Amino acid sequence: MNQAAPTPAKVWLVGAGPGDPELLTLRAARLIGTARLIVHDGLVDPAILALTHPEARVISVAKARSRHTMSQAAINALLVREALAGTEVVRLKGGDPFIFGRGGEEVDALRAAGVSYSVVPGITAGLGAAAQFEVPLTYRQEALRVTFLTAHKAEDAGNVDWSALTDVKMTVVIYMGMTAAPAIRDGLLAAGRSARTPVGVFARVTRPDAKAAVGTLDELPELVSRIDGGPAILVIGEVVAHSAPWRGFELNDVIANLLEAAE
Amino acid sequence: MNQAAPTPAKVWLVGAGPGDPELLTLRAARLIGTARLIVHDGLVDPAILALTHPEARVISVAKARSRHTMSQAAINALLVREALAGTEVVRLKGGDPFIFGRGGEEVDALRAAGVSYSVVPGITAGLGAAAQFEVPLTYRQEALRVTFLTAHKAEDAGNVDWSALTDVKMTVVIYMGMTAAPAIRDGLLAAGRSARTPVGVFARVTRPDAKAAVGTLDELPELVSRIDGGPAILVIGEVVAHSAPWRGFELNDVIANLLEAAE
Repeated sequence: MNQAAPTPAKVWLVGAGPGDPELLTLRAARLIGTARLIVHDGLVDPAILALTHPEARVISVAKARSRHTMSQAAINALLVREALAGTEVVRLKGGDPFIFGRGGEEVDALRAAGVSYSVVPGITAGLGAAAQFEVPLTYRQEALRVTFLTAHKAEDAGNVDWSALTDVKMTVVIYMGMTAAPAIRDGLLAAGRSARTPVGVFARVTRPDAKAAVGTLDELPELVSRIDGGPAILVIGEVVAHSAPWRGFELNDVIANLLEAAE
Repeated sequence: MNQAAPTPAKVWLVGAGPGDPELLTLRAARLIGTARLIVHDGLVDPAILALTHPEARVISVAKARSRHTMSQAAINALLVREALAGTEVVRLKGGDPFIFGRGGEEVDALRAAGVSYSVVPGITAGLGAAAQFEVPLTYRQEALRVTFLTAHKAEDAGNVDWSALTDVKMTVVIYMGMTAAPAIRDGLLAAGRSARTPVGVFARVTRPDAKAAVGTLDELPELVSRIDGGPAILVIGEVVAHSAPWRGFELNDVIANLLEAAE
């Protein structure tokens, strides 16, 4: 019946969640505590690394700040080499391994090398942003669908069929879309989505320095410039008008108008 | 700096994840252990309920088997009444509160009543299915986008604009789509998605009796009939051909062909 006991595995592809250490799953926390090698992508909270076994080695394969990044092929080779040498490895990935995490590629490499593996899901950053900033990604008859996509560069945004994303009942969640924000706005507007569509830019979600900027689709690039760097999640859709920062934004507007009127 | 300490809240809307107790987040487990009232939707693993405080009351507001379900208005009223009476409440929701969980409606009711609340994200069933059955929802240049939608009834499927879901580089994840499976197949085929598109039906994901059936889009209703009841997640897209059951399915086909040839 395959009850509680996990299948034997040498490499665990583990979703680390959006950043807050308390958003690890119980399984992720347990595996981080027992593996003898942790391979992560940087940007991992020290409280998560503090869970590691005292004898574990911890390797970062991507250092965002120094722009020094191990190639995917080199990461795959590292995982295979260590597992074949008998090391229990946790490959810790931000968010969820199968949502823009290249988990599929790592699984392919492990399988090709005959290495056992298991995948542990994680809270993807879009869900972390939604919970923290109170954006109901689906909502009554207003948001019936939600699409997750990525757009690193303006060229990526140029390759997206935005006409498939103009449905007003669809919430659009974009990962790694800060640089491409002007192209994303232009693509959606050209495809016919309203310039007044509420949008939110949610940076460093669930971390202590999380920040949000909300406004309308035509303002998207300006909102991105307000949040002091990423990573950030863009959410486009009517439901952003239910979010906590939007409600605060409206309240601030009311107060500003009152003060102006009182002058 | 809003470091580790959560904001004071009387009602916590908590995602319970897809079923496996180890896929609770650390925060969910902690809150379940301290709240004095747990309000859940049924289908919660006994190991999760075993985490509750000895003095906590546990109320199920939806009993799937008996078809006796408390209305959303009655659930909202219960949460408000208990919170205003000073009870710390965990409202435990399957998966994630904001992905087809009606979390937005409960948040609205709490806010309208002046009750404090916080939302804790959870692993939504689509991500649980993907990890368990090894379906990379996004994958290289093959699956650049993923859409989550729901279709309880054939009428719901009739209201979906399937033409927005024919993009071969988009993975489509459908919640509560078992009954509507024929209408989903018909809608996608009529909109132009290939009958040979790989599809998977993943039932009771991450539970001990999880089951998968994989095949092609034209076979979708037949696949649903094979998995002995829900809840189930439907995944439609090329990436299903990478899944563990698909690879097993292909292997079984090879063996069947060999046996046939040997006769």
